[in-house]
Amino acid sequence: MEAKAASERSADPLYLEDIQVGDLVETKEFTVTRDMIIAFAEQYDPQPMHLDEKAAHDTIFGELVGSGWQTLVLTMRLLVDARLLGGTPLIGAELKNIRFHAPMRPGNTLRAGAEVTAIRPSKSRPDRGFIDLKVTTRNADGMTLATQNWSLVMPLRSTSPERNYK
Amino acid sequence: MEAKAASERSADPLYLEDIQVGDLVETKEFTVTRDMIIAFAEQYDPQPMHLDEKAAHDTIFGELVGSGWQTLVLTMRLLVDARLLGGTPLIGAELKNIRFHAPMRPGNTLRAGAEVTAIRPSKSRPDRGFIDLKVTTRNADGMTLATQNWSLVMPLRSTSPERNYK
Repeated sequence: MEAKAASERSADPLYLEDIQVGDLVETKEFTVTRDMIIAFAEQYDPQPMHLDEKAAHDTIFGELVGSGWQTLVLTMRLLVDARLLGGTPLIGAELKNIRFHAPMRPGNTLRAGAEVTAIRPSKSRPDRGFIDLKVTTRNADGMTLATQNWSLVMPLRSTSPERNYK
Repeated sequence: MEAKAASERSADPLYLEDIQVGDLVETKEFTVTRDMIIAFAEQYDPQPMHLDEKAAHDTIFGELVGSGWQTLVLTMRLLVDARLLGGTPLIGAELKNIRFHAPMRPGNTLRAGAEVTAIRPSKSRPDRGFIDLKVTTRNADGMTLATQNWSLVMPLRSTSPERNYK
């Protein structure tokens, strides 16, 4: 899978001190095919609306739609490729308020955005902190498919042994 | 992928009226391999700690671990196979409070449990309602890997046209 076009951060590691509330990363885009939708469903979410047009017709969706979980993991892929935190890995502490606003359909072109909403030092671990992000996944028509809030762990430059977060 | 051994509900559709707070479904189990962890990471979460033992050694995990997203989608697969709602599809309205307690390691055997914590009729749609579930994913040692809260849409038997939820 190759995502196309957009801003990419450098591979240098980012630390909590480098992040500001309001920081926004927009990803490249990725077009999901019918075959990808069915392949994902066969492995992880084998339900009629994700597997087969005919079976999907009789469901509440009325047509083949991607698993909501696939919308979420494609969002992750787009944000990894965009180097959301530069060379610092994306490590989820908590994922909250995941809502599905519209189904992902075959041929949909997805892009995601992540905006920093809060920055918090850890109370128990002086070498790390958390950033909260509002993550939005849209299709090419600008329709919102999913929204979620992430809390990610980040190292502090001031106190962190660098090897821990390579 | 084939899950092994455990209670399975029948394929008859379940309606909101059939569900009670405290209902608990336990899934079969599934063993994740190193190759599955790497294959998932290559497609959806290509970060060093999920791709390669050597690269993982230098990360905060110190060893190859599965993507948290893979723990979540395997949990979905186990609950689909267990027919959590009988023949009624699992349609997520909201996923909340997803926490990762321990990483999934190559060779881990996963099983999941889902317990009904609340039942709510829809305020806007008389033909449906919501059930809230606490979902827990454990490995064979009984260690909790992930916990989450799901709100799923369910049809009401009394008011629902059956074809909508086939």
